[in-house]
Amino acid sequence: MRIITISRQFGSGGRELGKRLADRLGWDYYDKEIIDTLAAEHELEPEYIKRALANHGWHNIQLTYRNSFSHLLYDPGAATQLLCREREVLQSIAALGNDCVIIGRDADVILEAYHPFRVFVCADIQARLARCMRHEANRPEQERLTEKQILRNIRRIDKARANTREILSGRSSKDCSGFELILNTTGWEIKKLTAALGDFAAQWFEE
Amino acid sequence: MRIITISRQFGSGGRELGKRLADRLGWDYYDKEIIDTLAAEHELEPEYIKRALANHGWHNIQLTYRNSFSHLLYDPGAATQLLCREREVLQSIAALGNDCVIIGRDADVILEAYHPFRVFVCADIQARLARCMRHEANRPEQERLTEKQILRNIRRIDKARANTREILSGRSSKDCSGFELILNTTGWEIKKLTAALGDFAAQWFEE
Repeated sequence: MRIITISRQFGSGGRELGKRLADRLGWDYYDKEIIDTLAAEHELEPEYIKRALANHGWHNIQLTYRNSFSHLLYDPGAATQLLCREREVLQSIAALGNDCVIIGRDADVILEAYHPFRVFVCADIQARLARCMRHEANRPEQERLTEKQILRNIRRIDKARANTREILSGRSSKDCSGFELILNTTGWEIKKLTAALGDFAAQWFEE
Repeated sequence: MRIITISRQFGSGGRELGKRLADRLGWDYYDKEIIDTLAAEHELEPEYIKRALANHGWHNIQLTYRNSFSHLLYDPGAATQLLCREREVLQSIAALGNDCVIIGRDADVILEAYHPFRVFVCADIQARLARCMRHEANRPEQERLTEKQILRNIRRIDKARANTREILSGRSSKDCSGFELILNTTGWEIKKLTAALGDFAAQWFEE
């Protein structure tokens, strides 16, 4: 069984790259499916699960939003339980034994024993901003975020992801050797990058 | 003209990878040739040039050695002049117009206008240590460094390189988007990695 994990900077195109890669290889693909599984088990909204996992209270990231679940978001016990359950979901995905691509969720750390091909996807801040703006353009006008709000989100989400990863892996998120490959999507058409990455990964798995 | 620049962690195998890549592609290769040019111009030893460039006095790295050139090493003026001249040597290499692979010397920053394919090579600290130890084994026994000394060298050299790069580029060395690709050599046979990297770079240049 071969596993490719895709970690990424917010707005770098990592998710699209991972999806295209799974399609190209004909492998299973896991992204929001993991969150949906947890949501169904707990009879909660996927969006809530996502937020609770991101704001697990193990570190002091600033909560920049308040919502009706905010009393729960401050309960590290509940968040820790969810993270443990997330770990089990990832383990059961691996136990299926199918070749797969997994987006985010620190799958590279949690499934380390399976020797995944660990990819991190990044891009220039301008390219990430442009990608997010294109995404916003598809949303109703009154809900669209401003450039300033997007940049704030990018910083907040990247920091939260890096923190969680550091806690789980015990390794600095600045240590590039935690990945097989760090890819910069700036200037690439994601479709062509998918082909290049697929070829590279195939040679790694042969090793 | 296509330029591939290889920056690297000390002991990661970046130089071997770059040399093999240039051989595979049939491209020009520049590594110590740059230092040798400067040395010949200044009628100084290449080893002195290398040290003076690494210890340019623009930052506060600790000088962990003293030698007969130490009075010069403390002269930021002389080091700055050498760095300017190094920049000119790199520009004249690019002006030749030949496809080439350049190792280190911040060629990715200095030759940015030529849109080089910028690679950074890293590896696990254990793998780097093992590579350095194999290298030491080829030296006369009385000159061999201990494990502790090698680890100290790794830290010192990485830090000095990162500092110089940050000063020249105005970009944090932790910003991965300063490279097209960051490669982890751990677990690869360098020869096979060369093939995978060559294929990837070819697809990038087609874009």
